[in-house]
Amino acid sequence: MDGIPPIALDAMGGDNAPGEIVAGAVLAVREHGVPIVLVGSPRVVSEALAEHDAAGEIPIVRSEETLTMEEGALASLRRPRSSIAVACHLVRRGDASAVVSAGSTAGVVATGKLRLRAQQGVLRPAIAVPLPTRPHPTVLLDAGATADVKPEILVQFAHLGVAYAETALTVADPRVGLLTIGGEAEKGNKLAKRAHELLAAAPGLNFTGNVEGHDLLNGVVDVIVTDGFTGNVALKTMEGAVRYAFSELRETLEGGRAARLGAMLQRNRLRDLRKRLDPEAYGGAVLLGLNGTVVIAHGSSTAKGIAAACVLASTLSRQCTVTHVGERIATTHKPHRLW
Amino acid sequence: MDGIPPIALDAMGGDNAPGEIVAGAVLAVREHGVPIVLVGSPRVVSEALAEHDAAGEIPIVRSEETLTMEEGALASLRRPRSSIAVACHLVRRGDASAVVSAGSTAGVVATGKLRLRAQQGVLRPAIAVPLPTRPHPTVLLDAGATADVKPEILVQFAHLGVAYAETALTVADPRVGLLTIGGEAEKGNKLAKRAHELLAAAPGLNFTGNVEGHDLLNGVVDVIVTDGFTGNVALKTMEGAVRYAFSELRETLEGGRAARLGAMLQRNRLRDLRKRLDPEAYGGAVLLGLNGTVVIAHGSSTAKGIAAACVLASTLSRQCTVTHVGERIATTHKPHRLW
Repeated sequence: MDGIPPIALDAMGGDNAPGEIVAGAVLAVREHGVPIVLVGSPRVVSEALAEHDAAGEIPIVRSEETLTMEEGALASLRRPRSSIAVACHLVRRGDASAVVSAGSTAGVVATGKLRLRAQQGVLRPAIAVPLPTRPHPTVLLDAGATADVKPEILVQFAHLGVAYAETALTVADPRVGLLTIGGEAEKGNKLAKRAHELLAAAPGLNFTGNVEGHDLLNGVVDVIVTDGFTGNVALKTMEGAVRYAFSELRETLEGGRAARLGAMLQRNRLRDLRKRLDPEAYGGAVLLGLNGTVVIAHGSSTAKGIAAACVLASTLSRQCTVTHVGERIATTHKPHRLW
Repeated sequence: MDGIPPIALDAMGGDNAPGEIVAGAVLAVREHGVPIVLVGSPRVVSEALAEHDAAGEIPIVRSEETLTMEEGALASLRRPRSSIAVACHLVRRGDASAVVSAGSTAGVVATGKLRLRAQQGVLRPAIAVPLPTRPHPTVLLDAGATADVKPEILVQFAHLGVAYAETALTVADPRVGLLTIGGEAEKGNKLAKRAHELLAAAPGLNFTGNVEGHDLLNGVVDVIVTDGFTGNVALKTMEGAVRYAFSELRETLEGGRAARLGAMLQRNRLRDLRKRLDPEAYGGAVLLGLNGTVVIAHGSSTAKGIAAACVLASTLSRQCTVTHVGERIATTHKPHRLW
């Protein structure tokens, strides 16, 4: 432990809360040395901790209500004592260094905006997701924080993504691509065409031009910018397609006698590969542009995914990603009313 | 041959034109019994035919110019004698029953709109792509014909997709889903939210609600509706992710000694699977809403993909998909100015 405040982990958010969340907290503390504070119902959380012989090992901060997975943005306004709201409050007071939640993305985004506020000069927050490219991940944003955007906001998203790639992934001078439907500048919808012009003219960005859907996983750029609607559709399409390929593969492997034998011989390696492509492995999405680090873990996260999200949150916090984002926005943002 | 006019195949369009296109024509005629007329430079096309000992076996219609893969929508206006324009002209005159091209999508769409015109009442054409779900393909549209749309147009796209699923895929009362970023009606951008309202109220549609990116390949609906920007990004993301999964898989399989042996035992089955997920296997995209059948084959199509596209075009033509689309639009479309 290096003296930084703990990660505030929303014990009540996610499909597998609180069991897997608390198990993930135990894993994060014991295996990765990341300090955690669990936010939730003290009774429920202590019971879950006791199952791991960890009663008293991880502090608990009481929250009074829970945002369910079905509740959206509006609910967060009515719930100032929800687990995610309390977690944000801890960060705001300096009692925690980052928030981690596997709760509903809409709820986390709305609560984060409300309780942590956007950084000075930031027009809209964005969700950044590291895609499993090599040698280092490509950052896709926005993956769903802001569905309707103006072209100017996409330029800011580029800066948010660059700040993230530079700090969290230590990429020097990250290449930025605009997600659209053809390589030429004039390919796309109105938003993408105008954003292309603005990105090409923006100082301080290594904009390399348009990228397409099939470039998400080939590592041609370090940061891919798009609106939250397109980004969310693309991300879920990618996850669905990888899952589909593996399930088709499994059927294929189980098909014939020689194939079955072959499958046995390969089982471990296939499992490794699947793990690497698993959304849980890359820790989670990061909500950028707020006065505080917020990591959104997959709703279906198990303990391992939660622990990975806590490690990511701890890394981002130690690398001062929020400060770096703020500096980028301060030097590149010309304040003006957009609409 | 059942007396229908031949398929007009654009011999000059595509990354592998004219070699693979002409080879595909030979395959379509000899293996599948689909009558073809090749449109292109007679000298170049006859030379390619001669390589297959097929000189004189397939008629050639002269075109004077070629739309290159780099040329977009505007070029088609200036090229009334391009191979794709001449192919459309043959359909218009009744000398061909459908157009097949592996040329640039933007060029094919623009030329098709110009030379074949939209069907009565059709606001915008859409590209429909059959996705490799089971037991039958799910139709995704629009995959890139119209990037900026109004919500009313998405309702029409639903009708185009339903007409396609009913005729080409013989699906009864196809289920329609709207591609967006969450299951609830209020999830999405402004376009999707308004389109949801209109789709839910539209008579004659079996609208089952929102679908997300990961539903593209799981067969929960028969027709997925979206704008051409989102649809194109999603389609290319899907193709890229499947390709990525296989290339990662190959590396994994080649990794260890036991794995290598296993891979040998499975080689044939993996090849079969890969083929089934290959965009070439599903024949191509269909441009719906015009006065004529237009099939757009993948730009990188080989002979096999071209032949599959010709078979698809022939099927659509025999099943009178264009007529069926027209009837649906006529019974559901209330003419009014949209903007």
